[in-house]
Amino acid sequence: MISFDEVCEIVSQEISKLDWNKTPNGLYAPIEYILSLGGKRLRPAMTLMACNLYTDNITQSIYSALGIEVFHNFTLLHDDIMDNADIRRGKPTVHIKWNNNTAILSGDVMQISSYQLMTETPAPYLKQSLDLFSRTAAEICEGQQFDVEFEKMNHVQADEYIEMIRLKTAVLIAAGLKIGAWIGGASDEDADLLYDFGINIGLAFQLKDDLLDVYGDEATFGKKIGGDILCNKKTFLLINAMNVAKDEDLALLNAWLENNNPTQSAEKIQAITSLFTKLKVDKICEEKMAYFYDKAVAKLDKLSVDTNKTQELRNLAQKLMSRKD
Amino acid sequence: MISFDEVCEIVSQEISKLDWNKTPNGLYAPIEYILSLGGKRLRPAMTLMACNLYTDNITQSIYSALGIEVFHNFTLLHDDIMDNADIRRGKPTVHIKWNNNTAILSGDVMQISSYQLMTETPAPYLKQSLDLFSRTAAEICEGQQFDVEFEKMNHVQADEYIEMIRLKTAVLIAAGLKIGAWIGGASDEDADLLYDFGINIGLAFQLKDDLLDVYGDEATFGKKIGGDILCNKKTFLLINAMNVAKDEDLALLNAWLENNNPTQSAEKIQAITSLFTKLKVDKICEEKMAYFYDKAVAKLDKLSVDTNKTQELRNLAQKLMSRKD
Repeated sequence: MISFDEVCEIVSQEISKLDWNKTPNGLYAPIEYILSLGGKRLRPAMTLMACNLYTDNITQSIYSALGIEVFHNFTLLHDDIMDNADIRRGKPTVHIKWNNNTAILSGDVMQISSYQLMTETPAPYLKQSLDLFSRTAAEICEGQQFDVEFEKMNHVQADEYIEMIRLKTAVLIAAGLKIGAWIGGASDEDADLLYDFGINIGLAFQLKDDLLDVYGDEATFGKKIGGDILCNKKTFLLINAMNVAKDEDLALLNAWLENNNPTQSAEKIQAITSLFTKLKVDKICEEKMAYFYDKAVAKLDKLSVDTNKTQELRNLAQKLMSRKD
Repeated sequence: MISFDEVCEIVSQEISKLDWNKTPNGLYAPIEYILSLGGKRLRPAMTLMACNLYTDNITQSIYSALGIEVFHNFTLLHDDIMDNADIRRGKPTVHIKWNNNTAILSGDVMQISSYQLMTETPAPYLKQSLDLFSRTAAEICEGQQFDVEFEKMNHVQADEYIEMIRLKTAVLIAAGLKIGAWIGGASDEDADLLYDFGINIGLAFQLKDDLLDVYGDEATFGKKIGGDILCNKKTFLLINAMNVAKDEDLALLNAWLENNNPTQSAEKIQAITSLFTKLKVDKICEEKMAYFYDKAVAKLDKLSVDTNKTQELRNLAQKLMSRKD
């Protein structure tokens, strides 16, 4: 089996080979820029790893894997406009470095590029891969729409939040795994199991992200801690805190949610973090994360391939749960 | 042969059958809205007509035709944000009726929908149709980028303008024709000829649009006459006027271009229209339009099908040149 690190190296090399030196440069330069900012390359790596469970010839799934990654980065580009985000991976976002119109139009052509790559899926799997890719792409937009709508709602239920992150984060990981498995020659049963593995590990991954945003170490996390707290983002932590907080804890939480004074940012982060810890919502989140992680790994156990073949995916799943960034 | 009117009726019926009653409604309602505003349905109609040159069974090209039309409407949605356009087909644009973020995200999912439709192209033609569709889609974005860049440039050459409208308008008409021809069973030679017909009729169509925007009748054109003049849009008329105007004509033209006083809008439209007529740039534009129209029709003459079969496309081309809206 090819290791996760080796697979990431292949993905990085292939991404750097994509040619964005096209006319008009103003349209294509932002694509090269956002792809150069890096990222974990988790989605394409998992696509290749799923393929590798069934064949040594993983190069046949490389374009599909790249299509998944380019689509993911396209969503970041448009989401950053909608979320008014200035910084992405420590660098100015595209709509800040250029402008909104450029971010819209370069994003559009980036989405087209993702389809161009996905259309290179080997012929026997082309139609089904494109159907799954499009359905997944639409679901990601639905997830983003729910995310935007949640920010204007007073109360969001925990299960509504889980459904939102399933759409916004988990389905693309799952679709990449399923497409990779198909290309490798997996049975439909195995492809479905890998899809379910992707959904559950994607949910656990996003909950870990919510935890890191509050409890992470700024130096290793790579972005400011407490960003979600400062914008009152209805994460799994905040939703649960609103549910379990009573009396003075609830009053204090609400007071801080209403306080958006920028000079008190540090105090707000500290106060809400302390409340989360006191209310044990960090534990609730960790338990939910462990629940999805266990469900994910159980799917791998059911695959028709030898257990040793799935070891790299198991290691990766483990690594994602204990990660610091 | 099925007539243009019959084909348009089929397209309208099929568009009305598309289901946008999906969750979240805030994401899908703008798509239903923009598609309900109508339009000429020229692109899907021509896709079906090209297919009909080679087979009576045109239903096999309907989803590809709809994919072309949904993509076209998606570009309008995002272009209207970039162009700050408030009105489209007499109704508020999506970013005005809703907001910018909705217009971005609904546009994104609309682009995905166009790919979902295009992926229903019959299997033997799927890969080549998707490749052409994606290349065309990217070219449309390139055309829009050039259009945006031209507005900030002091001088644009007539041939640069023609290349921009080729990308922004003509290639999608051409791609629809070619895909329809392929699905019908056309030879590659015929499919290429129909593509070239589409490019040339698309260029003539856009030049006619430029003329109607200045010389049209507001009642039949359906939008305000002089819109291009008021925003100093570098159309084929203005580019040629800048080239041929001398001395006091040039001074007068420049003075009006610098005058953006909204209380003098009517005078500006009247003055620049008079200058266009005096400088005979309307004639230059009509000649160029006739040049592309003749080139387009010459492509139809070379097709391997009986001349009587191409009569509906000839009638349509003629109608587009003499149209009032």
